[in-house]
Amino acid sequence: MAAVARAHPNIALVKYWGKADDELIIPAAGSMSMTLDKFATTTSVALTSGSDTFELNGTTADAKATARTTAFLDLVRDLAAQAGLDTAQAGAQVVSSNEGPTAAGMASSASGFAALATAAATAFGVELSSRQLSRLARRGSGSASRSLIDRFAVWHAGTSDATSYAEPISAPDMAMVSVTVNATAKKVSSRDGMTATRDTSPYYQAWIDTTVTTLNEMLAACAAEDFTRIGQLTETHAHRMHAVINASHPPIRYLAPESWQIFEEVTAMRQMGLEAYATADAGPNVVIICRPDDAAAVAARVGAYGQINTFSPGPGAHLVDVA
Amino acid sequence: MAAVARAHPNIALVKYWGKADDELIIPAAGSMSMTLDKFATTTSVALTSGSDTFELNGTTADAKATARTTAFLDLVRDLAAQAGLDTAQAGAQVVSSNEGPTAAGMASSASGFAALATAAATAFGVELSSRQLSRLARRGSGSASRSLIDRFAVWHAGTSDATSYAEPISAPDMAMVSVTVNATAKKVSSRDGMTATRDTSPYYQAWIDTTVTTLNEMLAACAAEDFTRIGQLTETHAHRMHAVINASHPPIRYLAPESWQIFEEVTAMRQMGLEAYATADAGPNVVIICRPDDAAAVAARVGAYGQINTFSPGPGAHLVDVA
Repeated sequence: MAAVARAHPNIALVKYWGKADDELIIPAAGSMSMTLDKFATTTSVALTSGSDTFELNGTTADAKATARTTAFLDLVRDLAAQAGLDTAQAGAQVVSSNEGPTAAGMASSASGFAALATAAATAFGVELSSRQLSRLARRGSGSASRSLIDRFAVWHAGTSDATSYAEPISAPDMAMVSVTVNATAKKVSSRDGMTATRDTSPYYQAWIDTTVTTLNEMLAACAAEDFTRIGQLTETHAHRMHAVINASHPPIRYLAPESWQIFEEVTAMRQMGLEAYATADAGPNVVIICRPDDAAAVAARVGAYGQINTFSPGPGAHLVDVA
Repeated sequence: MAAVARAHPNIALVKYWGKADDELIIPAAGSMSMTLDKFATTTSVALTSGSDTFELNGTTADAKATARTTAFLDLVRDLAAQAGLDTAQAGAQVVSSNEGPTAAGMASSASGFAALATAAATAFGVELSSRQLSRLARRGSGSASRSLIDRFAVWHAGTSDATSYAEPISAPDMAMVSVTVNATAKKVSSRDGMTATRDTSPYYQAWIDTTVTTLNEMLAACAAEDFTRIGQLTETHAHRMHAVINASHPPIRYLAPESWQIFEEVTAMRQMGLEAYATADAGPNVVIICRPDDAAAVAARVGAYGQINTFSPGPGAHLVDVA
């Protein structure tokens, strides 16, 4: 009645920014990502007769994070009840630790809920397919659905709980070089930023429409193993995400001045023949994609801007211990 | 048969970015601006029997600038011909000098064509009303239509040459503090950037629609002398312009990292009780609007980011000499 799982963050090349259903976390458009091979979250879930507890990075989590974890565990208990399991009544002791920076745009909520879904399903005795696990993780944090998946994932937007899940796709091997510009917590959470964008940005519907188009183009580029096309689509799409967010009222800015400097630097790299493309999630960090052989050269070019990490495609969420 | 005119740049609070008619320079949406009291362009036009010549800032202008001037003078010659004047056959010796930086986002083309329209009409003997002069200046550079106007101008988009012109509006007194981040020429001209935005940005139509809405809100805020509302509309609208541009493919970035730093600084000013709002045209410079009494405090806060100039509402284009 205890399990430990491990999952990694993922970085989207086609972004998730906007919900069609806030409660079920069904996105307004699909997305596509690479699962990383570093910055894992390791989460253990042990059933107890008491109420849920949640320890994060060595300390008891705050009330908000604990409530979000309990709400997620309620989904697992619902699944246990549907399967006629006694564990439907159990509490859970959740202990989680992130190897990467928390809440600074490195998607710790994605690895966190992917690991939690995987560990909790096993601890509660609920048997789920990869697709069902992806759907479950999605309910905790949308992008967690993708961290279930090895290497490269497409998250189908779907139109219901059953049809909104991630699955693997094939893509050419690539590296990601992340620049951690500022690892403090962001001022506006992704959740709040998404809502503000949908409610106040005049570009929101066009953003959703262009994301649908870009995802189709990206899947075609991946299938064709066309790295240049993948990179161009990624960089334009990242600008479009920050643009739709910037256009909110009042304006929201996730990118820092240093982030824009890195975008300029990446443009300069290409002009000098080093083929790299930049993207950024809802925070100041910038992630550069390049061919694996170019990763060291790219890292050297941006070392002055912040802490550098280089990633390869990594494993999906997986159990590491069951007791 | 010679005239000298002077005109000032203007800074739009509601921006012009997108043409409905490229040939006639009819914008896709109206705009609103403050004419500045510094950085004037002074232009003399003297009729000659030879072909047109154009001297800019003390040197013979390049072929592209000369061709653009001749094309503009052709419009004046057409008006002269319509009025049955002999001057329709004349060439013109144009000598122009800018007191502000050229082609770095301080709208030297606006003051330039406003001064040229005013001087040329007089030199060629064509009598034009303020509205007709605004329409004429518009053909040289869209935003020049607004530099004809004293203090604050609305440029009605219109749907034809006759209905697309600027006229004065009343607005509360305010100051503008400009920060010249980088006074070198910009990489993508406004003309080319506008075309790329219209052709490749998925947000273009929403940008035009929101500009129409914002202009109506801005005119109401000006009529109500509501400075806070004017400022909020200005800052959000500026973000939306740069957002629609950033979303082009490939992305276009006019703002420099330093520009984003100044936006952050202005947000910090407001949090400390100094009411200021930022905007930026198609270049890296940032212009901060504030109440006149706050201008010195605002200037002191941004002095480290570049050269500072403080503006009050200035005069429209006007003749300074006729010979």
